[in-house]
Amino acid sequence: MSPMSKTPETILVNGLIFADPASPNVVPHGSTVISGAHLAQVNQPLEDDQALTAIDCSHCLIMPGLVNAHTHAAMSLLRGIADDLPLQKWLHDFIFPVEEKHANPEFVYLGTCLSAVEMALAGITTFADGYFHMEQSAAAALDVGLRGVIAQGILDVPSPDAPQAGSWKDRARTFLDRCPKDPLITPALFCHSPYLCSPDTFRKAHEMARERGLLLFSHVSESRGEVEDITRRYGARPLEYLHRAGVLGTHFVAVHAIHLSEGEKDLLEETGTSVVHCPECNMKLASGAAAAWEFVQRGTTVALGTDGAASNNNLDVFEEMRSASLMAKLVTGDPEALPAAAAVRMATVDAAKALGLDDRIGTLEPGKLADLIVVDLDRPHLVPLYDPVSQLVYSARGSDVKHVFVNGRLIVRDGRMTTIDERQLQWRVTEMAGNISKGLGLTNYRDSQK
Amino acid sequence: MSPMSKTPETILVNGLIFADPASPNVVPHGSTVISGAHLAQVNQPLEDDQALTAIDCSHCLIMPGLVNAHTHAAMSLLRGIADDLPLQKWLHDFIFPVEEKHANPEFVYLGTCLSAVEMALAGITTFADGYFHMEQSAAAALDVGLRGVIAQGILDVPSPDAPQAGSWKDRARTFLDRCPKDPLITPALFCHSPYLCSPDTFRKAHEMARERGLLLFSHVSESRGEVEDITRRYGARPLEYLHRAGVLGTHFVAVHAIHLSEGEKDLLEETGTSVVHCPECNMKLASGAAAAWEFVQRGTTVALGTDGAASNNNLDVFEEMRSASLMAKLVTGDPEALPAAAAVRMATVDAAKALGLDDRIGTLEPGKLADLIVVDLDRPHLVPLYDPVSQLVYSARGSDVKHVFVNGRLIVRDGRMTTIDERQLQWRVTEMAGNISKGLGLTNYRDSQK
Repeated sequence: MSPMSKTPETILVNGLIFADPASPNVVPHGSTVISGAHLAQVNQPLEDDQALTAIDCSHCLIMPGLVNAHTHAAMSLLRGIADDLPLQKWLHDFIFPVEEKHANPEFVYLGTCLSAVEMALAGITTFADGYFHMEQSAAAALDVGLRGVIAQGILDVPSPDAPQAGSWKDRARTFLDRCPKDPLITPALFCHSPYLCSPDTFRKAHEMARERGLLLFSHVSESRGEVEDITRRYGARPLEYLHRAGVLGTHFVAVHAIHLSEGEKDLLEETGTSVVHCPECNMKLASGAAAAWEFVQRGTTVALGTDGAASNNNLDVFEEMRSASLMAKLVTGDPEALPAAAAVRMATVDAAKALGLDDRIGTLEPGKLADLIVVDLDRPHLVPLYDPVSQLVYSARGSDVKHVFVNGRLIVRDGRMTTIDERQLQWRVTEMAGNISKGLGLTNYRDSQK
Repeated sequence: MSPMSKTPETILVNGLIFADPASPNVVPHGSTVISGAHLAQVNQPLEDDQALTAIDCSHCLIMPGLVNAHTHAAMSLLRGIADDLPLQKWLHDFIFPVEEKHANPEFVYLGTCLSAVEMALAGITTFADGYFHMEQSAAAALDVGLRGVIAQGILDVPSPDAPQAGSWKDRARTFLDRCPKDPLITPALFCHSPYLCSPDTFRKAHEMARERGLLLFSHVSESRGEVEDITRRYGARPLEYLHRAGVLGTHFVAVHAIHLSEGEKDLLEETGTSVVHCPECNMKLASGAAAAWEFVQRGTTVALGTDGAASNNNLDVFEEMRSASLMAKLVTGDPEALPAAAAVRMATVDAAKALGLDDRIGTLEPGKLADLIVVDLDRPHLVPLYDPVSQLVYSARGSDVKHVFVNGRLIVRDGRMTTIDERQLQWRVTEMAGNISKGLGLTNYRDSQK
């Protein structure tokens, strides 16, 4: 770009700014300039003739957008379909049969649009998604305007987009070929778990990921049953099993990591493997409490994730920050465990690092991408303001997010989407859910309430 | 009231209705009539000439208002002043010194107004408050339009409104004399705890309460330290101690009740003593997890409370419902523990019972008081709708509340207070917080951000 070219610029003025959660100083904000996709200046005096669009952020906090480092976005279409059930009953009586019947490309596109809108409105600017028909997830992320790490699901057993057992390699290659080349989209691979992917599958997926410079995700040690199963089958605990398969490392992301031995915690540390901590989902399914606070102390990078809306049942990283902190305090008996500032780091700069995006997002710095949110502090539950970081974690809600920029684009303005018709989306969601309800013999509340 | 007298009537039409959380049937709603302070009809066909004001509740859920059965409302003025600290440091270095200096009548009035507004906007129609200068709390509840169980704090040591040790009796009598006689206000007494009130104080407070037909509250077994302390001093665990003092029973409310022996759980059951469960506060201060699910199974009435905003740090019963359920599942390892419907009961009908108000509020029935909320289900994080009760507990936020009626009065309309100027209130709060900040040498963010 020549110095003479005119790039659209937006100026944010006034309010408070929390530019780098790694050193949690919140300071009065002067002005910040977004030029194209990037931050041109952060909290610097304004040059007179720059402004094209000025946004007044008085009584607001400007901060990096939140990152949801683990979800299955399309599953928002199954939100609340089956709760308060044991995991196996939930999976086998509800989730798997419904997915087998309904999880087609349209389902994935529509469900991911719904989730992307929910996330954007709650201040999430980047999500890491793992599911099927993932070119549809990428398309939805682009249509809503969210940044996505879009990971194609891999299982040894038949799945909705690879109905032949063992055909995952073809499906993954198809996805990688079709995945839109766009600055918002980072393709990746997602092995379901040690119990649904063989060592050979993990090795081959890892090889495919390394060849193309992609991240590889997997659920690991989500339940005690999994640890027993893997130990019985392979004579190794899940992370040991993955280490033997050669997949741990800075390009591997372990989701959940609840039931770990001391040796497995060492493995995380030694290999530089990142962890995604999903406190609300882990509580709701009674899976247990990952020792996220301990991983951080050992130098492991920990991000926060919501998991899918069928198990959580929303996609709100404000809640996950609060729950991560509260859960840590309850489990350790220490009120100083996982303080507010640590929770914010897991939702921003450390999540960016786990996803390999920390050179581009996670803090507000000139030259980084303009992924930022403006949180309205001028609400009864957010006054008085003694400590903005405490307020974010312990008092705020996703609905306090006023404006959201992703890649320099204002996708949420005054709490409404600018990119997609929310009303029309909800109609389509309701229509599809009506069909799913019918198949399960559930009440169709939307039809009945007019 | 004669059949001829004209009482202002409001008609709610359309939407879904969840009239009695004790049997969680959510059904399509026809029309409900509010006449004066009461529900005249609930979900019955509309007679033509009744309507004065019709409110369309399409795509909303109509349900009983939520009850916050434990808070220290004025402490919202100290929200976020000191977090992530051990309890004793939090109390002695921050809360007690600030209260000693600032907790005057104006502080109590202003802080309670702030909390009442926060609560009303999040769908709370009744709160049970325990603090000092409680005629100010009652005045604030009336000005905001909330129903309050207003309990005068009692301590053996000097307190902000009874600076002479032992003068609590005079202060309590003054409160009971001055407390406004209003259908919204139920006066009560609140002994701080077994460690700050002697057996004699408990007996005398109980006698005063019984003479006047009032509830008596106390914090009980909030920490292991308290159990050790009381056992050492009195040779009895806290609930045993209270039983010996003769105060347990249907007019006594035990707040927290975390560290109980089997014998103490029996005492709750045998005496009909109610419990207020405050899951988020208990997690945040690392106090432990009350066995709320077990109390319910044993037939003890359990209500939910937020505790004060200085320790929580917000007053949101939607969050407490979710946290009560998630905490129960985590602690028991059972995903079926404390299901969504049980959490809603604790926040509505059972809370009304604990507060002795179940003949008037807690369910929507003709003849009961019109304390009800209208929750907007037409939002991206609340679609699709397979199970409205799950949606309330696991997906909704306080900010999804659209309209709030208390005693037949519409105090929140379309998410805004109708009774009080929110803006002016926040200015006054910010001004007072500025003075508190100065005294503690904290940053005054509001002055600095303009």
